[in-house]
Amino acid sequence: MSNIKNGRWLVKSYPEDEVSVDNFELVYDEVPEPGEGEILIQTTSLVMSPPLRMAIGTGGITGNRVKLGAMMRGSGQGVVVKSRHPGFTEGDRVAGAMGWQEYAVTDGERPFPLEKISPKAGQPITANLHVMGASGATAYVGLYDIAKPKVGDVILVSAAAGSVGALVCQLGKISGCRVIGIAGNEKKCRWLKDDLGLSEVINYKTENVAERLREVCPNGIDIYFDNVGGEILDTALGQIAHGARIVLCGATSQYEGDANWYGPSNYFNLVYKEATMQGFYIFSYAHRFKEAHRRLGELIANGNLVYNEDVLKGVENLPAGLIRVLSGENFGTQLVRLS
Amino acid sequence: MSNIKNGRWLVKSYPEDEVSVDNFELVYDEVPEPGEGEILIQTTSLVMSPPLRMAIGTGGITGNRVKLGAMMRGSGQGVVVKSRHPGFTEGDRVAGAMGWQEYAVTDGERPFPLEKISPKAGQPITANLHVMGASGATAYVGLYDIAKPKVGDVILVSAAAGSVGALVCQLGKISGCRVIGIAGNEKKCRWLKDDLGLSEVINYKTENVAERLREVCPNGIDIYFDNVGGEILDTALGQIAHGARIVLCGATSQYEGDANWYGPSNYFNLVYKEATMQGFYIFSYAHRFKEAHRRLGELIANGNLVYNEDVLKGVENLPAGLIRVLSGENFGTQLVRLS
Repeated sequence: MSNIKNGRWLVKSYPEDEVSVDNFELVYDEVPEPGEGEILIQTTSLVMSPPLRMAIGTGGITGNRVKLGAMMRGSGQGVVVKSRHPGFTEGDRVAGAMGWQEYAVTDGERPFPLEKISPKAGQPITANLHVMGASGATAYVGLYDIAKPKVGDVILVSAAAGSVGALVCQLGKISGCRVIGIAGNEKKCRWLKDDLGLSEVINYKTENVAERLREVCPNGIDIYFDNVGGEILDTALGQIAHGARIVLCGATSQYEGDANWYGPSNYFNLVYKEATMQGFYIFSYAHRFKEAHRRLGELIANGNLVYNEDVLKGVENLPAGLIRVLSGENFGTQLVRLS
Repeated sequence: MSNIKNGRWLVKSYPEDEVSVDNFELVYDEVPEPGEGEILIQTTSLVMSPPLRMAIGTGGITGNRVKLGAMMRGSGQGVVVKSRHPGFTEGDRVAGAMGWQEYAVTDGERPFPLEKISPKAGQPITANLHVMGASGATAYVGLYDIAKPKVGDVILVSAAAGSVGALVCQLGKISGCRVIGIAGNEKKCRWLKDDLGLSEVINYKTENVAERLREVCPNGIDIYFDNVGGEILDTALGQIAHGARIVLCGATSQYEGDANWYGPSNYFNLVYKEATMQGFYIFSYAHRFKEAHRRLGELIANGNLVYNEDVLKGVENLPAGLIRVLSGENFGTQLVRLS
């Protein structure tokens, strides 16, 4: 391993709005040696999702952003290449927040907890990074535990072709609802309509969302699954039906830029329509993951649920992967495969 | 009755922001004669509440504002002075949306439904316009059906000395919660602290609400009962505890001015704190009124609940009554007694 280096991305500067590759710097260090009680893992894949933008912005839920000169945060999967820890053996497949690097050392808890993983429900192990992981659970819990769909409900989903959104769309249809998707390019819109069979799809970059909503759901939206925040959330609030449930899942449109978030001025429609807007944090629903993944797995096995992975290769493409999800160029869950 | 006239207020112009008496015009017409199947009532009291502002603004839930030259909307109580309707007798006490006038004719349904009333739970009949009416039910349902308080919850109430707010404060205390009130003048703040015994009171006109909230509830707000909207809602959202419930009841700060409402940019804290923001419309909870009024009546009878009426007299003071509640000068429910 002596001539192998550990490629790592450091944060060089904070972006003012849009992230650029120049905000990061790729350095090559020695591959670290695990000490007594430690494990060396080699990163196989990292997953890119829009909230990661906050690691170099507002800091997100913790308010902690990555310090300048420190390694960029990130989560993914790896394989144990050396173990001096009784609980791990060479070859174990593992998941954790190893950051943007090719090799990482941990004692299993610090600097990051390590979890052994295996493929679920006949899916490739990378599915643990989306449909068999947090995204799948988020779609399932957000829809069934928070929104609670009834047959005939009109469900609006933003970022409908995204990792979570596409699952919500499909679950909504399977549950007897009429699903309207919002996405940002023609390829996604066509896929949502032709492959997922959504009733209506709105391209928010080329169409007037408020007008289209009045047209396609004149009686209002029963469930809005919000992945984007901003103007689209506000517009959706303006078109809710009586008793609507707004599930706050993400706010992709707001992660870039400063802490000055767009506040939805139509919020008072929650009173007029006796509606509810609720946020949730998927890791509070760990007790629901097993059911979620089992049922999603069954649907996939029966050909009733599909998902896409959008894979870039090589450590040098980590910033490109983040930029893709922030600009919406990705088609499905954005992964970067490192080895 | 020949030399008695019917004083009525017409809407002369729409206010750009703050309402002035010049937006209205007082005219004196003949007292109308009830036709076959109709009832003539004499207005005794009208109740003023901030949402009435929307009748000459955005139009509120229906979007219908009072036309220029038409009579101003309003609800209150009256007494039947002439009846040609089998269901009503001279002397009956009645309630309805008779508008800003001293005498009104209706067939019991049109132009407005008329309801016979009697005093409830030993209270004066005007209490039907607040604690034994919609305000009482709103406080009770908003707190127990929507927010669902638990012992030890920190409850923040805005417009805490108002018709609804003061009841929520007292119910919250009785239910074992720690109640923090926000009000806009010293008289109200002193009453909330000294008479209602609230833990903390914030004068939003002289104090920094965000700072004071961090000081008095560093672990966050479990229930925010919002009567005002605007900046205070946004600030409260910034200080919610995990699992918080925000009850949207009113938006007094937003009724004046155009449809450009203040959108709360801290709404995403609903995700970070797994919180819920819910609106409700009290007339959907008609089935809960009986319980609400019985229990509120018991609390009043036992000396555990108090309320204030702020009474102006004379038809000429109707605009002044509305202006008082919009500027927050009223102390308790604002009534205008006409006869």
